[in-house]
Amino acid sequence: MITLHHCMSARSFRILWMLEELGMEYDLIMHDFPPRHLEKDYKKTNPLGTVPAFYDDKTFMTESSAVCQYLADRYSANKMGVGVAEPSYGCYLNFLYFGEATLTFPQTLILRYKHFESLERRIEQVATDYERWFLSRLKFIDERLLSEDYICSGRFTAADVSVGYSLMLASYLDMEEKFGNGIKKYWDKLRNREAYMRSLKIQESEAKKQCVSLTASPRIR
Amino acid sequence: MITLHHCMSARSFRILWMLEELGMEYDLIMHDFPPRHLEKDYKKTNPLGTVPAFYDDKTFMTESSAVCQYLADRYSANKMGVGVAEPSYGCYLNFLYFGEATLTFPQTLILRYKHFESLERRIEQVATDYERWFLSRLKFIDERLLSEDYICSGRFTAADVSVGYSLMLASYLDMEEKFGNGIKKYWDKLRNREAYMRSLKIQESEAKKQCVSLTASPRIR
Repeated sequence: MITLHHCMSARSFRILWMLEELGMEYDLIMHDFPPRHLEKDYKKTNPLGTVPAFYDDKTFMTESSAVCQYLADRYSANKMGVGVAEPSYGCYLNFLYFGEATLTFPQTLILRYKHFESLERRIEQVATDYERWFLSRLKFIDERLLSEDYICSGRFTAADVSVGYSLMLASYLDMEEKFGNGIKKYWDKLRNREAYMRSLKIQESEAKKQCVSLTASPRIR
Repeated sequence: MITLHHCMSARSFRILWMLEELGMEYDLIMHDFPPRHLEKDYKKTNPLGTVPAFYDDKTFMTESSAVCQYLADRYSANKMGVGVAEPSYGCYLNFLYFGEATLTFPQTLILRYKHFESLERRIEQVATDYERWFLSRLKFIDERLLSEDYICSGRFTAADVSVGYSLMLASYLDMEEKFGNGIKKYWDKLRNREAYMRSLKIQESEAKKQCVSLTASPRIR
């Protein structure tokens, strides 16, 4: 049985989206953000205090893009994964990691030093530095996406979920108008997927049932 | 034919270390750091301007931990990888990503705002925030490493190279004395591996041949 611990629109959204793409059964446990400060027992669920906390029987995982790869490999009959012997295997792995390490982490600096920190600890320079960083890294994939529908392998894979979440976060951070034309087209395709839209509705309705507040979350607006 | 573009002790060191563990043949091209500012043509090698730039025939990759997984899957006959059907597969994937996204990225903030930026752009608060972040995330694996020799699966895998590089970087940033006992024991085992020590020597001797300067590199001391 799969259990996903999730906060509204946090990185753990990737896993919710994957589970919906694959039509899997799971328990979704919503937390107010950040759970390590708001729930004194949350560290029993995840010693890191972060979301996601993902359980599949005895498997425990905390890295959202790693869980995307895991679900694709274990449960998608290779539909959302790419096989080791396929020519695009390296490209697939690269974008799975790139979506998190290169495209999402920089945005957490914007979130932290522009939105989440107390006023006296906010630092405009860092937010600006990492907005620039994020947008320059995004250019790397813009041209590719002008001529390709998906980030690799000519089909929708877990790597699109990894990269796609970074675009969702960027849209919440009001950077959408700075997307190049390739990214715009791609993001439009992703956010209109049924499983993506269903995941948004599910987290919203579950948060209403399970959470104290919808505002103290990484969802900016 | 494999080609690795590398700067002294940068993240691309992971790939050098993997290639040496696997006894593979490769071309190592050393660059002064940061190549995107020092070599006007470097963006032809890697449009992102970063290292690693890794080429294996038509495969091009830029994420060092992704390349570790790629090499393990394609070239190690599963010796350094973990199979999808193995019980620890999820744990293996988690630590491959964790080594980069959770343990290395925070340290690049320390590097940037404490060492690399011009004096007027340095920000002590960010360096302190992310040293604390890094050390708290490290605690998550300390206890596990008191009783286990390797990060997962009971054997040395690509995930150890991913996590191990973050400890190498931490030692350059003088955080070694803050390691818990599990991490100390683990780091001691890793840095005494023959392939690790050989990789250090190779980058040093190749940098002497190929680079203008050894000082303008992420190697702090």
